[in-house]
Amino acid sequence: MEYLELNSTKEGLASAVDDMWVLNATYLVFYMQAGFCMLEAGVVRAKNAKSIIMKSIIDTAIGSLLFWALGFGLAFGNANKASNSFIGTSHFLLIGYENLSFFAFQWAFCATSITIVSGSVAERVHVNSCLVYTIVMSALIYPFSAHWVWSYNGWLRNIGYNGIIDFSGGIVVHIVGGCVGLVGAYLVGPRIGRFDSDSGKPKPLPGHSITLSTLGAFIIWYGFYGFNTGSTLGVSGGRINIASRASVTMTISACASCATTLLAIKIKSGKYDVIKSVNSLVGGLVSSAACCAMVEPWAAFIIGCVASFVYLGGSNLLLKLRIDDPLDSSAIHLGCGIWGALSVGIFATERELSLILRKETTVYGLFLGGGFEQLGIQVLGITVVILWCLISSCILFLIMKKFNLLRIDPTKELMGIDMDHHGGPAYPNNIYVV
Amino acid sequence: MEYLELNSTKEGLASAVDDMWVLNATYLVFYMQAGFCMLEAGVVRAKNAKSIIMKSIIDTAIGSLLFWALGFGLAFGNANKASNSFIGTSHFLLIGYENLSFFAFQWAFCATSITIVSGSVAERVHVNSCLVYTIVMSALIYPFSAHWVWSYNGWLRNIGYNGIIDFSGGIVVHIVGGCVGLVGAYLVGPRIGRFDSDSGKPKPLPGHSITLSTLGAFIIWYGFYGFNTGSTLGVSGGRINIASRASVTMTISACASCATTLLAIKIKSGKYDVIKSVNSLVGGLVSSAACCAMVEPWAAFIIGCVASFVYLGGSNLLLKLRIDDPLDSSAIHLGCGIWGALSVGIFATERELSLILRKETTVYGLFLGGGFEQLGIQVLGITVVILWCLISSCILFLIMKKFNLLRIDPTKELMGIDMDHHGGPAYPNNIYVV
Amino acid sequence: MEYLELNSTKEGLASAVDDMWVLNATYLVFYMQAGFCMLEAGVVRAKNAKSIIMKSIIDTAIGSLLFWALGFGLAFGNANKASNSFIGTSHFLLIGYENLSFFAFQWAFCATSITIVSGSVAERVHVNSCLVYTIVMSALIYPFSAHWVWSYNGWLRNIGYNGIIDFSGGIVVHIVGGCVGLVGAYLVGPRIGRFDSDSGKPKPLPGHSITLSTLGAFIIWYGFYGFNTGSTLGVSGGRINIASRASVTMTISACASCATTLLAIKIKSGKYDVIKSVNSLVGGLVSSAACCAMVEPWAAFIIGCVASFVYLGGSNLLLKLRIDDPLDSSAIHLGCGIWGALSVGIFATERELSLILRKETTVYGLFLGGGFEQLGIQVLGITVVILWCLISSCILFLIMKKFNLLRIDPTKELMGIDMDHHGGPAYPNNIYVV
Repeated sequence: MEYLELNSTKEGLASAVDDMWVLNATYLVFYMQAGFCMLEAGVVRAKNAKSIIMKSIIDTAIGSLLFWALGFGLAFGNANKASNSFIGTSHFLLIGYENLSFFAFQWAFCATSITIVSGSVAERVHVNSCLVYTIVMSALIYPFSAHWVWSYNGWLRNIGYNGIIDFSGGIVVHIVGGCVGLVGAYLVGPRIGRFDSDSGKPKPLPGHSITLSTLGAFIIWYGFYGFNTGSTLGVSGGRINIASRASVTMTISACASCATTLLAIKIKSGKYDVIKSVNSLVGGLVSSAACCAMVEPWAAFIIGCVASFVYLGGSNLLLKLRIDDPLDSSAIHLGCGIWGALSVGIFATERELSLILRKETTVYGLFLGGGFEQLGIQVLGITVVILWCLISSCILFLIMKKFNLLRIDPTKELMGIDMDHHGGPAYPNNIYVV
Repeated sequence: MEYLELNSTKEGLASAVDDMWVLNATYLVFYMQAGFCMLEAGVVRAKNAKSIIMKSIIDTAIGSLLFWALGFGLAFGNANKASNSFIGTSHFLLIGYENLSFFAFQWAFCATSITIVSGSVAERVHVNSCLVYTIVMSALIYPFSAHWVWSYNGWLRNIGYNGIIDFSGGIVVHIVGGCVGLVGAYLVGPRIGRFDSDSGKPKPLPGHSITLSTLGAFIIWYGFYGFNTGSTLGVSGGRINIASRASVTMTISACASCATTLLAIKIKSGKYDVIKSVNSLVGGLVSSAACCAMVEPWAAFIIGCVASFVYLGGSNLLLKLRIDDPLDSSAIHLGCGIWGALSVGIFATERELSLILRKETTVYGLFLGGGFEQLGIQVLGITVVILWCLISSCILFLIMKKFNLLRIDPTKELMGIDMDHHGGPAYPNNIYVV
Repeated sequence: MEYLELNSTKEGLASAVDDMWVLNATYLVFYMQAGFCMLEAGVVRAKNAKSIIMKSIIDTAIGSLLFWALGFGLAFGNANKASNSFIGTSHFLLIGYENLSFFAFQWAFCATSITIVSGSVAERVHVNSCLVYTIVMSALIYPFSAHWVWSYNGWLRNIGYNGIIDFSGGIVVHIVGGCVGLVGAYLVGPRIGRFDSDSGKPKPLPGHSITLSTLGAFIIWYGFYGFNTGSTLGVSGGRINIASRASVTMTISACASCATTLLAIKIKSGKYDVIKSVNSLVGGLVSSAACCAMVEPWAAFIIGCVASFVYLGGSNLLLKLRIDDPLDSSAIHLGCGIWGALSVGIFATERELSLILRKETTVYGLFLGGGFEQLGIQVLGITVVILWCLISSCILFLIMKKFNLLRIDPTKELMGIDMDHHGGPAYPNNIYVV
């Protein structure tokens, strides 16, 4: 019963408050699952709504169990030992591990990363394959990246003076999720009818509910406040100021990205495009993940404006390459994730970085006079993580393809996955033109 | 102005932080109302969507006023006196009561319990009857159970060495709500067309929106973090560790239950069933309510796996008995509520139980060597509460039936409650096949 | 690095906890954007769903950037100087400003105020005009009101012994938003078909989804807990008790208002009206904004019951005046906002008001024996803010009308804004009867 008495010391209350912060943030991050599920459901056609929901449920439920059993130990096991910078080897099934609020927070992060993938491969992938990639991601792909970047003894964390900086998962969550999704979207091939069979030009396959998608985006935005500020892992010792800064800068980045897209498309086409605005909003949030705690509000504004073009450019590039990513997940999460991780090397201030690292540092953002070192480390880290994800997910999806697990057959795709796999449509009382 | 100065002492800040925890949890628990409303709305047919929403609004609005006026005083009045173990007798209308965060938390619990019922009697019950049972539940049925199990002088709380253990409402909220719902579903009779008039075999009456139902389930899951961890009533004095544990174990139970159902149905029928997976997820959360704070992660996994079969078995049993519970509310809340309450007697660890009770105890979970006493007390408490709910709600629903308040007439049922009671359909721009 | 060491003193932790409270409240208030967006989307017809969503996105994204660049500085700049009671003149773009959690909270308030307007002018206003009024409101109309009422040196705050009391935005957020919306609804004119061209009688134009509207209302309710309790700006020093009171009284007001409307309409028409109940619920919350922290539960009940009639009366008055406010936003936010701000002068208790003002006061609610002074100040403040909003928004909307920016042309209105402005319908897979 040793911690029954903890509160009699000052540290007891501070530590309780810190854990309270982490738990509240965890709940918010978890709630992003609802947001991604609704965003994705709204963007697919009605005939595949059940299927995309099932994938959300699978990655949450199955992924969580795997992360508990294996992933967390691989990512954060033996963090205090100098022995292994490559992978953790303890705390499987949480045996003998007491810092449960930290586990909960990391669990919610892993679940977010996995759920990104289902958007990229939506409307033509077999539900079974979702089961497989969920298992591999939560037990293998994600934990390795997390260990290298976040574990105290991770090798990327210990490069250079500061190590790689990924404040809240721009690399570990968004680049990983976006990259696996991109590989999936490429290897599974485009949906039937997405590209004209003669000209190769993209044809719109609009989703069935803008209201659900928008709701999802707002929920994601709401949850992102936990995502980006919970990473302080507490509020004591001045950390609340880091969290306050992160809240403000992420808001500015999200709004700047959304406003830029809104106006850019309005100027170009005369229309106000809801889906692209919503996606840019999420892109702005993603770009803030790695850097929000260490940049000035004006820098957050620039980061957001650029994120808009990163997203729009990425989305166009996908179409040029004939890669069909129904939710633009890879443009949003991989593209803006890379941009946000680079922003650390460009815009991080000396003061905030020192505060976060709890040591004085002279290596910080290039544009603020902090030299090229941090930017170089960020480039290295991003490259390593992308390579890791590309290779591992290529192998994964190619194996699934080989065993014919990946894609449903064309008749079923045209009919909709829901009729075949899920026993009926998501809206059985409704007449839909499929 | 006596508490203006409170913060000058250490206790002041700790107590402020504790209340902050309780308030944040209260908001989350309240938000479950949105979740239940959406879950229920999605599972009924479009023609009854307004009606089920109206019932959600009635139980929240009217139930809250009754709980403020009467229920809270009956449940928690005179808790410090040794006088009355049967029912509270003070603090009606909150007169002279200052611990408002505690009231708020208990209010949100009561509202959750009542809202469970509307799912069981959906699509054929008169809105008026919802008004009546809301009043009786919030002012009578719920407060008695809450007093017995949770009030300091409640008689079930003072049986044996530990008393009955219901950490966050597995018995008081879920068994009560599920049991009243079951009685209602039985006495109001099945919906027209639910069972074949010749063979008696059940025929599916699928709900109108899987997306809304899933959103509701995710919101319920999110709110459950407040439900299951707010019951520490604070974070100081080591209680944050109880909350962290509860967060992790409830997540594992929910995921295990959901994954088990998912895979069990896939193996049996070859389909991935969204609604049953979602229901199992909620069932896993319900099963964690009573025990989450005092079990190990591995035990939470087992509790979740079993909860899946409890739910599926309960759901099948309902059909065999020709009881039509459109949301399977009684299988979920009564079934998994019972299982979770029993789990305390089976899986509670000595260390965690001592921490929660703030005294050393040698009576704990059977499987961990703590003997049969706690399991026996749990069985007794569950039985008593179920009997109380069965009897009181039987009387209630039979009176309503006698005065013809209970069920709408068949023509209106076929047409849908919304056209008759609510002045038009929920989706007036839409063509629906009713 | 001066605040790295803050936590070594008691004040450090208390201040961290206070900011944590403010940030969590900020997230909840932000989330109300999702609520308003869904409430509004559900109440408009399917053909205008994208349009109303676009307006929500514009006011959030563009409004936030303007509030960061200009609005916050005008509202709260130079607050500590005695120099300018009329308008703030510093902290533009947050330059040199460190209290970022306070900024975040105020940002979320401003965003709430602006989003109210889009409901009043829904289904016939040009999206461009939304862009214009968002800019003017966030950079001009809102900041002036906020400065006068909330800034330490605001002139309304320094009138009489207590100054004007608007605990959490009954005046600054709801009256401002509702008043600008009313002017907009009047000047833009009713939707085609809203009033019979011969008799002038209103004809219902029901919205396309009651489920979305109800979800929105529940989200608003949930977010209101942050809105009404975050205004304590912390929990230390006894402020948690103010927050607990606010949580309870706002709940009672909301439920009382909803229940009153529910029963009043049932008695009058025999129907249970979902939309009016939901609107009354929001009206009850709005009426609690100014006064919730300083009234007794019984007073909150009365405030809620009266709010119901204020809303219903306001809604009827709008129809008599042939003003078409599709969401009844002005009846809810202006009407109940006024009533709530008056309630401070009627029901505020001596004890709670002293606690909030941090000084003993003998000026409090009229019905509790505190004299007429506070009520008089409230009337003055309400009048001033309404006049300011009427004049400034009249000029704004008349200029837009003159330049033909305000209303879309009738053909496009009949077809729906979405087809013309947003490149297609919100539900492209669906057959709708428009």
